[in-house]
Order: sequence, then structure tokens, then C-alpha cells
Amino acid sequence: MRLRHKPWAKEKIEEHPQYVIPNPEYYHGRWNELFENNNPVHIEVGTGKGRFVTEMARANPDVNYIGIELQESVIVSALDRLIEAELSNVKLLHTNGEDLRTFFAKGDVDRVYLNFSDPWPKKRHEKRRLTFESFLKLYEDVLVDEGEIHFKTDNRGLFEYSLGSFSRYGMLLQYVSLDLHNSEFAGNIMTEYEEKFSAKGQPIYRCEVKYQSMVTADV
Amino acid sequence: MRLRHKPWAKEKIEEHPQYVIPNPEYYHGRWNELFENNNPVHIEVGTGKGRFVTEMARANPDVNYIGIELQESVIVSALDRLIEAELSNVKLLHTNGEDLRTFFAKGDVDRVYLNFSDPWPKKRHEKRRLTFESFLKLYEDVLVDEGEIHFKTDNRGLFEYSLGSFSRYGMLLQYVSLDLHNSEFAGNIMTEYEEKFSAKGQPIYRCEVKYQSMVTADV
Ligand SMILES: C[S@@+](CC[C@H](N)C(=O)[O-])C[C@H]1O[C@@H](n2cnc3c(N)ncnc32)[C@H](O)[C@@H]1O
Ligand SMILES: C[S@@+](CC[C@H](N)C(=O)[O-])C[C@H]1O[C@@H](n2cnc3c(N)ncnc32)[C@H](O)[C@@H]1O
Repeated sequence: MRLRHKPWAKEKIEEHPQYVIPNPEYYHGRWNELFENNNPVHIEVGTGKGRFVTEMARANPDVNYIGIELQESVIVSALDRLIEAELSNVKLLHTNGEDLRTFFAKGDVDRVYLNFSDPWPKKRHEKRRLTFESFLKLYEDVLVDEGEIHFKTDNRGLFEYSLGSFSRYGMLLQYVSLDLHNSEFAGNIMTEYEEKFSAKGQPIYRCEVKYQSMVTADV
Repeated sequence: MRLRHKPWAKEKIEEHPQYVIPNPEYYHGRWNELFENNNPVHIEVGTGKGRFVTEMARANPDVNYIGIELQESVIVSALDRLIEAELSNVKLLHTNGEDLRTFFAKGDVDRVYLNFSDPWPKKRHEKRRLTFESFLKLYEDVLVDEGEIHFKTDNRGLFEYSLGSFSRYGMLLQYVSLDLHNSEFAGNIMTEYEEKFSAKGQPIYRCEVKYQSMVTADV
């Protein structure tokens, strides 16, 4: 994402602790306290400017959304959206997705969304892709049993790679569309990147994969 | 495939038993006798006019190919190719792919190719798709352990469905390309249908999936 220096961003984030949670480690194992309900929690890693989580939260009041974004200059745009939307079921974390285990206990999260994640096309950067094995382990460690990842991207290489990575991890491919905007999938909410890339005529790829509880064999 | 009535087809097929094997059940468990070697056997189900098996056989003399085609008026075109090619490592079966178990014992086949299989887009025809669960069981019953299916198609719906079907069956997705002709995949041999559809600018989808030996748990 293109960066513009926004010196006021840090301050603005600190001024809105009800939207950008300043102490997420406190809610480890008890996010229901923050949301004041027991609704499912869906997180988006790499939420960018926050359109997806905000509009999903508006459309699904019985689900709690948490957008996680590393970059200060980007998350402030998401914050602006949240301030405007005035929804109680969507929050932001200004942190690195790699630290999920610090904020979420096993079972705290019901679904992980990955939207237009950075593709890291070079083989030597494979480990940085958000669908690399170590990330799949990370999500598994915070998700409920048989939790799901919903993933969409315009990037063919990343999608091809990710399907293989999910499969190697033993995940179940429940749904796949190789041209989301010309599919029967209803209720799609476009992200900022999705709008940009689909306007160029590129197909959008999307899948839903599920962790499978393993029957452990005594070998 | 468009059918033209070819009254002479039956006769022509019978005149070339060295290419269109008249008694495939005889070779059940002993295809090495027919090929007079122990090279791996790769079969294509729904081989059409035979370009793929013929050119694969030419390019890979250490692999034995068997093209299986149901329709008389289509398999004669494949026969013409074989007569012209004069290769000893490619044969045809004029049979229904559903009867594979009659001709092949477990382990007789090292790889199954499915190319541009009929899509059967209607949900109520799902069972006819060559990647439906019962067909995956069928291929498993004739393949070596950890045998592979290599599948390509221009049909988005069939490919999406098939990825899910392979996954539900517990197969491992080893390779996937969502635009074969713009990928790094080397040595692609185009089928008749592939040539036709890619000329229209449609992307060709391709994947390689592998059966996994299950660790059976004593539950
Ligand atoms: C290509 S943008 C996509 C943004 C948004 N999901 C969309 O579809 O419009 C990827 C975003 O992920 C963020 N990101 C990448 N790695 C991250 C990580 N480890 N933790 C949190 N955010 C990350 C980047 O800062 C960037 O804003
Ligand atoms: C769409 S064509 C593709 C032909 C070829 N593979 C190609 O790519 O050019 C599908 C072919 O599969 C054959 N076929 C369909 N079901 C079959 C079955 N159960 N057993 C054998 N052949 C079958 C059809 O007769 C047809 O020739």
C-alpha cells in the first residue's frame, strides 16, 4: 500500500481507543467483554483502509469484526470509516498479524478473512505470504475447531500458491470461485483493492477453506 | 463432441487390434505383457481424437499411454493418428471409462489424465462429471498408491467443482495453474479441445492432484 507520512496519525489513533483497541492482550480469552456479547468474532488480517470490516459489520450486526493492520498511515483511514459508521461490532488492532497469539486464545476467533494480501511473488519471500504454512498454524491456534479462512485476491500466483498451501496443511476446500464477480456468490462486499483491480477487468479469485479436526492415530 | 455417423468406423477399429485393444480384460493385472516392458502406464479417460496421448507417447518413449474413448465415431480419428504415428507405447480402448476396474487391477495405472472432460454443468448431472466422488474412487482402485490425476479444462465451473471434489476426497493438490498458457509450465501438449478454446482467449485451468495413503486409526 502506498505510504504517505501522516504525522498526526499516531495521535488520532490514541484519541480513539474505543475503535483502535490500545490493549488487545487484555482481551486474550475474553473478547466477549469488549463486545459485551457472545457473538462470533471474525478477524481480517491486513485490513487496509477498512471498508470490508466496516461494511461487513453493518451488514451482519450479529457478528463482531476486528480489522488488523500494521501500518499507521493506512489504519487511520479505517479509523475514519469507523468513526463515521458508529457501529459497536467492529474494532481495529494496530498490530502485526504475526502476533495474533498474544491477543487471541484458542477458540477466540471464528473466522479469518484475508483480502488481497501482499503477494510476495519471489520464492525467497514465500514465508511472508499470509497463507504460508506458519501463518496457517497461527490462525489455527486462535480459531475455533473447524474454523474457516475466507480468502480473496486478484493475484493469480498467490491464489495458486495458497490453494496448494491449504491442501498441504490438510485443510478442506469448501468453496472456490475463479471469477467472483461473474459467479453466483451473493452478498460480496468489495474491498478497496478489489474495486481497483476488478475495474481493470481482472478476475477476482475467492475460496473458503476449513481446518479439519484430525483423528490422531496411535502409530 | 459432435457426432458424424461413420458406418465404416466399427470395421476400421476391428481391423487394427494392435491399436484399439479388442480384449482389454485379458490384460487385467498384466499390461506389461502387451507393452512388452515394465514402464509406467498413464491413461487418459475421454481421449477424444487422440492428439494428447499420441504426442505424449512420442515425447515420452519410456511411458506407456492408453487412451480411453467411448464414441466410435471419435475414436476412429484417434486410430488414424496412431496408424500414422507408428508408436509402440500408445494404445486405445474403445470402452466406457466407468468400467476401468474390468481392465485394470489395483496398481496397473500410474497416472490418470483428464482433459477437457464434459462439464455436465447441471447440479442434477453432478454424478456424470469425471471428477465426481465415485470416479475418484474408481481411479483410486486402479492406480498405484499415491497415484496422480492430471486434469485440465477450459471450463471454470467444472474446475471449481473438481478442486472441491478432490479436496473432499482427501487428495493433495500438488500443482495448480489458473492460466496454463501464461504460466511457467513447460512441455504442455495441447489437446484438440484445448486448441479450440484457447484460440478464443479463454484461460486454461490445470492441476495435479495426488491420492494420499491414509493412516488408519483404530478408533
Ligand atoms: C494489499 S493491501 C490490501 C488491503 C485490504 N485488505 C484491501 O483488500 O483493500 C495489504 C494490507 O495488509 C497489511 N499487512 C501486511 N502484512 C501485515 C501483517 N503481518 N499484519 C497486519 N497487516 C499486514 C498491509 O499493511 C496492507 O495495508
Ligand atoms: C469434450 S471431449 C474432450 C476430448 C479430448 N480429451 C480433448 O481434450 O480434445 C470429451 C470426450 O470424452 C468422452 N467421454 C465422456 N465420457 C466418457 C466415458 N465415461 N468413457 C470414455 N470416454 C468418455 C467423450 O466421448 C468425448 O470424446
